[in-house]
Amino acid sequence: MNSIKANNSIIYFDNQGYISLNDYIKKGNFSKIFILVDENTHAHCLPSFLPNLLTNITVEIIEIEAGEIHKTIETCTGVWNSLSDLDADRKSLMINLGGGVVTDLGGFVACTFKRGIKYINIPTTLLSMVDASVGGKTGVDLGHLKNQIGVISSPDIIIIDTKYLDTLPQNQMRSGLAEMLKHGLISDKHYWDKFNNLSNLKLDDLDGLIYESVLIKKHVVDKDPFEQNLRKTLNYGHTIGHAIESYFLSNANKPDLLHGEAIAIGMIMASYISTQLVGFSENDTKHIKALFKSFYGHVNISKEEYAPIIDLLKYDKKNEHGNINFVLLEAIGKPIIDCLVPEDVIIDAFKFYDA
Amino acid sequence: MNSIKANNSIIYFDNQGYISLNDYIKKGNFSKIFILVDENTHAHCLPSFLPNLLTNITVEIIEIEAGEIHKTIETCTGVWNSLSDLDADRKSLMINLGGGVVTDLGGFVACTFKRGIKYINIPTTLLSMVDASVGGKTGVDLGHLKNQIGVISSPDIIIIDTKYLDTLPQNQMRSGLAEMLKHGLISDKHYWDKFNNLSNLKLDDLDGLIYESVLIKKHVVDKDPFEQNLRKTLNYGHTIGHAIESYFLSNANKPDLLHGEAIAIGMIMASYISTQLVGFSENDTKHIKALFKSFYGHVNISKEEYAPIIDLLKYDKKNEHGNINFVLLEAIGKPIIDCLVPEDVIIDAFKFYDA
Repeated sequence: MNSIKANNSIIYFDNQGYISLNDYIKKGNFSKIFILVDENTHAHCLPSFLPNLLTNITVEIIEIEAGEIHKTIETCTGVWNSLSDLDADRKSLMINLGGGVVTDLGGFVACTFKRGIKYINIPTTLLSMVDASVGGKTGVDLGHLKNQIGVISSPDIIIIDTKYLDTLPQNQMRSGLAEMLKHGLISDKHYWDKFNNLSNLKLDDLDGLIYESVLIKKHVVDKDPFEQNLRKTLNYGHTIGHAIESYFLSNANKPDLLHGEAIAIGMIMASYISTQLVGFSENDTKHIKALFKSFYGHVNISKEEYAPIIDLLKYDKKNEHGNINFVLLEAIGKPIIDCLVPEDVIIDAFKFYDA
Repeated sequence: MNSIKANNSIIYFDNQGYISLNDYIKKGNFSKIFILVDENTHAHCLPSFLPNLLTNITVEIIEIEAGEIHKTIETCTGVWNSLSDLDADRKSLMINLGGGVVTDLGGFVACTFKRGIKYINIPTTLLSMVDASVGGKTGVDLGHLKNQIGVISSPDIIIIDTKYLDTLPQNQMRSGLAEMLKHGLISDKHYWDKFNNLSNLKLDDLDGLIYESVLIKKHVVDKDPFEQNLRKTLNYGHTIGHAIESYFLSNANKPDLLHGEAIAIGMIMASYISTQLVGFSENDTKHIKALFKSFYGHVNISKEEYAPIIDLLKYDKKNEHGNINFVLLEAIGKPIIDCLVPEDVIIDAFKFYDA
């Protein structure tokens, strides 16, 4: 597969990535290489990555704890201190090997350490391959508010190598798939239709589907890097999805909910709202609900929880002047941005999801 | 005085700044305005600033504790949380009213909150007017290492209004003067000569001298925004100066040393090293030492403290591949960058300062 240029990054697929990485390191005159991993990618991905790295430069490993609850400024401080302790300087290179937490947090740490060092992202989860890989968003959560702190920046190189998915748990695979489904819904009926019988999907098909998903996201981000219009469509399902994710994360008595699992709920609800407000086909909404539930199951959200989740909506960083902005669909592949949605319609959408 | 364009900022002097600020706010469609102050500028500067702000938009005040020891990520987290709690969104405007800690930290907080909101800097100390105002460096300290965490970014508007200096303590004035002296030493003998009898300097002269100092820094930064060559000259006296500052900050038994006071020591030592290594006039070095000591007095640094201070040098973010890079002077106005200095010469420079 050809490499893809997105913003200031080049995305390489499979082995071509390592050849380019070694070439980049050879030319870069780097003083040291720091690989950021979490405990999972340390165990499962680093051993298969390291033999690909052909260099005499000193390599140091920095490990953070796995999971969204560690995507914090406190974790950044730990990594910044490790970099300092290990004599990182402005000519150091950072390689972020992991899922979205590692690449988002690692990118932010690299952009802010000594006002910016070079970094490379190697996403190891399906979600980070199709979502975090393109678009230059780095950052961490603030308390229970997702991605509140960060900067826009791109690594020079991104390597997408699906061999890292071999050890990825099923729920993590499902989480990534939600973003791919979203790419179909907001921009490409043909691509969306490929997922219509999810149970028949083979792992062999995945490489091509990931490539298409990255291309869709790249086209959107290229046309609107600063999220003035088209890029907002990538937030389909995310307005409510993020709030649900934050709510589950901050309540110890709720089960763990992965990003994609929360976004799947958000997409069902946004489809319902689209039918209510902008004429999206009721049949499509029913189909989306049935399809997503067959894959993601049903998550219990009681009526008493609607209000605190809606409270969290207003903290979404996409909102301005206190308004809650939704992306809705007129049809599959035809999104509308900046839709104001009355609170009672949001509550109806919760009920539709629950029914 | 005319405004000065530097990078993406416009620097206004005196009342012209407030007229431009109000115009900027009128056009900016901001949702809320947040003014960041420390306890000193809250008491001494905010009351004279607020009447200049003509707007119906809600204004919120966020206060941090004064002083370099609070220029930390923990303080940033406090400000980020305050912004969240007070419903700041991407269309919020931040106004940083204070010295270098407030403008450096506030700029970093603004650049990273929801991946970046607009901000304005109003430096209220001499040091922040002539140094932090130009160049787009934002950031905070990491432990005892100065400015380790940050990004390069510029506020849209900077207002330099010397009325804020009326309430500034003398040692803070001296601290700022050190950077102005540096501007003379590295780039302009004519400007340097204006300071040669510091005791005769009148407050009335200050407006013009500040303007000249900002222009010097602007020209340097414009020619080399990414610090590849010319901009490095601004680090004259800072390699050792930063290390001394860090050392005094981290040792409870050492007296408080302001940035400019530490840099003044660094400049005396760098002048001595310049004479030893690159032919800088011995008379100029003697004159610099006498002049600076008459103004800044003598600071005790015992022989046992040389080693731990030199250890701190290697953490300076300007250093690469473990080398300690100095800026030296061939003559006043003729700096040389990237000079490697043997450790024994650094120790001799300490002794020269102490003698």
